[in-house]
Amino acid sequence: MAKNDKEFVKEITPQSEDFSQWYTDVIKKADLIDYAPIRGCMVLKPDGYELWEAVQVGLDRRFKETGHRNAYFPIFIPESFLNKEKEHVEGFNPETPWVTHVGDEKLQERLAIRPTSETIIGEMYHRWIKSYRDLPVLLNQWANVVRWEKATRPFLRTTEFLWQEGHTAHQTEEEAREEVLKMLNVYRDFVETDLAIPVIPGKKTEMEKFKGAIDTYSIEALMQDGKALQAGTSHYLGQNFAKVFDIQFLDEDNQLKYVYQTSWGMSTRIIGAMIMVHGDDRGLVLPPKAAPTQVIIVPIMAGKDKEMVKEKALELQTRLGNSFRTRLDDREEYTPGWKFNEWEMRGIPIRIEIGPRDIQNNQVVLVRRDTGEKIFTSLDQLESTIDTLLTEIQSNLFNKAKKFMEDHTQQATNMEELREAVVEKKGMALSGWCGSSECETKVKEETGATIRNIPINQPNDLGTCVYCNNKAQHQVYFAKAY
Amino acid sequence: MAKNDKEFVKEITPQSEDFSQWYTDVIKKADLIDYAPIRGCMVLKPDGYELWEAVQVGLDRRFKETGHRNAYFPIFIPESFLNKEKEHVEGFNPETPWVTHVGDEKLQERLAIRPTSETIIGEMYHRWIKSYRDLPVLLNQWANVVRWEKATRPFLRTTEFLWQEGHTAHQTEEEAREEVLKMLNVYRDFVETDLAIPVIPGKKTEMEKFKGAIDTYSIEALMQDGKALQAGTSHYLGQNFAKVFDIQFLDEDNQLKYVYQTSWGMSTRIIGAMIMVHGDDRGLVLPPKAAPTQVIIVPIMAGKDKEMVKEKALELQTRLGNSFRTRLDDREEYTPGWKFNEWEMRGIPIRIEIGPRDIQNNQVVLVRRDTGEKIFTSLDQLESTIDTLLTEIQSNLFNKAKKFMEDHTQQATNMEELREAVVEKKGMALSGWCGSSECETKVKEETGATIRNIPINQPNDLGTCVYCNNKAQHQVYFAKAY
Repeated sequence: MAKNDKEFVKEITPQSEDFSQWYTDVIKKADLIDYAPIRGCMVLKPDGYELWEAVQVGLDRRFKETGHRNAYFPIFIPESFLNKEKEHVEGFNPETPWVTHVGDEKLQERLAIRPTSETIIGEMYHRWIKSYRDLPVLLNQWANVVRWEKATRPFLRTTEFLWQEGHTAHQTEEEAREEVLKMLNVYRDFVETDLAIPVIPGKKTEMEKFKGAIDTYSIEALMQDGKALQAGTSHYLGQNFAKVFDIQFLDEDNQLKYVYQTSWGMSTRIIGAMIMVHGDDRGLVLPPKAAPTQVIIVPIMAGKDKEMVKEKALELQTRLGNSFRTRLDDREEYTPGWKFNEWEMRGIPIRIEIGPRDIQNNQVVLVRRDTGEKIFTSLDQLESTIDTLLTEIQSNLFNKAKKFMEDHTQQATNMEELREAVVEKKGMALSGWCGSSECETKVKEETGATIRNIPINQPNDLGTCVYCNNKAQHQVYFAKAY
Repeated sequence: MAKNDKEFVKEITPQSEDFSQWYTDVIKKADLIDYAPIRGCMVLKPDGYELWEAVQVGLDRRFKETGHRNAYFPIFIPESFLNKEKEHVEGFNPETPWVTHVGDEKLQERLAIRPTSETIIGEMYHRWIKSYRDLPVLLNQWANVVRWEKATRPFLRTTEFLWQEGHTAHQTEEEAREEVLKMLNVYRDFVETDLAIPVIPGKKTEMEKFKGAIDTYSIEALMQDGKALQAGTSHYLGQNFAKVFDIQFLDEDNQLKYVYQTSWGMSTRIIGAMIMVHGDDRGLVLPPKAAPTQVIIVPIMAGKDKEMVKEKALELQTRLGNSFRTRLDDREEYTPGWKFNEWEMRGIPIRIEIGPRDIQNNQVVLVRRDTGEKIFTSLDQLESTIDTLLTEIQSNLFNKAKKFMEDHTQQATNMEELREAVVEKKGMALSGWCGSSECETKVKEETGATIRNIPINQPNDLGTCVYCNNKAQHQVYFAKAY
């Protein structure tokens, strides 16, 4: 009968035992997703979707503050469009689902389900942009996209996923390049401030860049298993798409010119990062700013005081609801102990326990999810205490993750040190790199580590290439990656 | 060079001359959409998408207040799922795009692009619902859907469109039926309160109901050309999908039972209704509650006072921005007169004109979009005046539309009167109906009018059927429809 009961009572595998299984256990047990009956697709359940809503709110506000507006373009991309940009089509073609029929009728031209929207947007920008007065065009789209990847994992890599994709067009290369870095910084700010995940902003190598871009920038985060995760990307497209889609404008000097473009995206993948950076063996740990529920109230209801406690807890919920995202768990079929575990597993930043004795003493007990610390607080100062606590938890999570990243990043000047940093110590290596794809490939073959990015902040002394020992062009981060 | 210049300077066709052309002119000239290079698809440009964002905000709040949560299900529906509910598949099959290949590989089972999600959600509810304790399940999804319809029109009927779809499962028929009417009322409240569109809530006939539902309810609005538009639907699905997807739960009496389900949806179509109910020969007229911009400031800048006026206007924008959605148009390449036309065409509820003399007199001129009335207001009472005015405009738009609907609705007791109401007077007929599909079909064949719905409020005396003259089962609204 109870089809999924087994999952719900199963314990969470400890991170140290099997990080990958821990991840799978946590997202299922915290009820964030379910697997859909289509290969590699997931269903975002309400608790999972709420995390995406938090991402949407945080990013959308920042996009609008930086002058962008939302629009919506079709999910279908005619085959001829996708074929226009050579590298782009080669990059995406094997992963693209094709609509060939409608009802019983065969279409004249096959339609791709968008893997990304540069091409369809290129066609529209060709129609819209005529003069330098029409520039810049600063649009964003919230949408679903599809990439039929071989190995899929919930949030991290799914066949269909939700994301936002910004697409801008500019008069000059300088302005476009400025936009690329501006949006990279918007991502960094959102991920560090709201999600408490420290990241490294940098530039991707030729091998790792977006197919169709001139330069790709990324923010990279380090998960607790020592693997890096690309959390957002911002691309300088130059005039690549402008030339194939003929996006020309009459400039101030009366010359016809191609626009310079950018695109940038962040997806539901970021939720996977949030889980893997902060979670522990008891389950999710959500950063207060992004947590759909910040405070969970668990009344200790027993005996003759039951109704009184319940009433007080309800009062408290109403009161705190004015300042914090608050929920009350007054279910009677579960014990307080069971509920403590449950809400810890779901990662709620603060738990409030309130029982008859607390009420007598005009106090409650606050329990921090991040440290487990118990704090007795007078009901009179509750809001200010919670407010301070949420701020503390937010910065504690960030600092902990930052320290983890620092502790798991080693300077590596040769392959032995690199292997130690990446394989034995499970983390990142910061190394000199000569700039050749050969060395990049060799390191990957020998250690499994790829260049995550070339950090924007470069030291004065670049040293020598970790592989060939020639003069380094850059310092780069090597790591295994999701 | 200037590819679309022609469209931008073209005047708007008067409604009385050609309503359909008026509609097309307005949405293009107000820059809400563009036609996409895929049959029947549109691009929602920023001004159009902002209207959808207003709909999302208004509905999402109401859904959450009534206990619903958002989730996200895959866009792909395996062919075998769609085939499970017979009526449902017959209704949607001819309009369904099929994914047959990924890259160069043929799929084992074809995947439909969702026309609606009852089937994929049915499969997941089968997995999730085990006990009466799991009920009710109250989920909503914001998503894109695809229906390959023959005749398409922007907003009203497009190949791909954006919508929300609610899907709920309940323990009893009674509770499910209550949900159906509750959500119908949520739609009515949103459309009447926020969009200022009066609607008729009622039940669809067998012929017009959703394929797969037991009962479909709708809210119907009347456009200014006398055609009705179905603005939202709420379906009682009974146990139809529960039986084919085996959604059973162990009830309190220890019996296995099928759940009772509902689904309900509203789409980007509602934006078309807003345009056709309120618009006039000068363009859009947006209801203040839903208008992305409520106040547009046009400074009258000339001669030596130019900078002073510009500065004052900027000050005003900052000040009013705290209370209202305010924009400033201080472009110097356009005359004030040109701007007045432009912002009227875009439907902004209130225009503020501010020139040197106004500043001297510590006043501004407010101009109402709905009536054209000019109001001189002291700068000291600006916020309260605007606030009152926005409320007045909102209710004026609703009342005007309500009066239009009343004026264009005739009681019709025979076919001659019905034809006069629908064809000559271009509106709706309220008539008795015997309940037979034969009479319903005959009326359609002879007048082009269909039964829009059976209004929930029925009179005591139902009269006789407008077609066969037998005893009527209901009073119903007949109209031509979008």
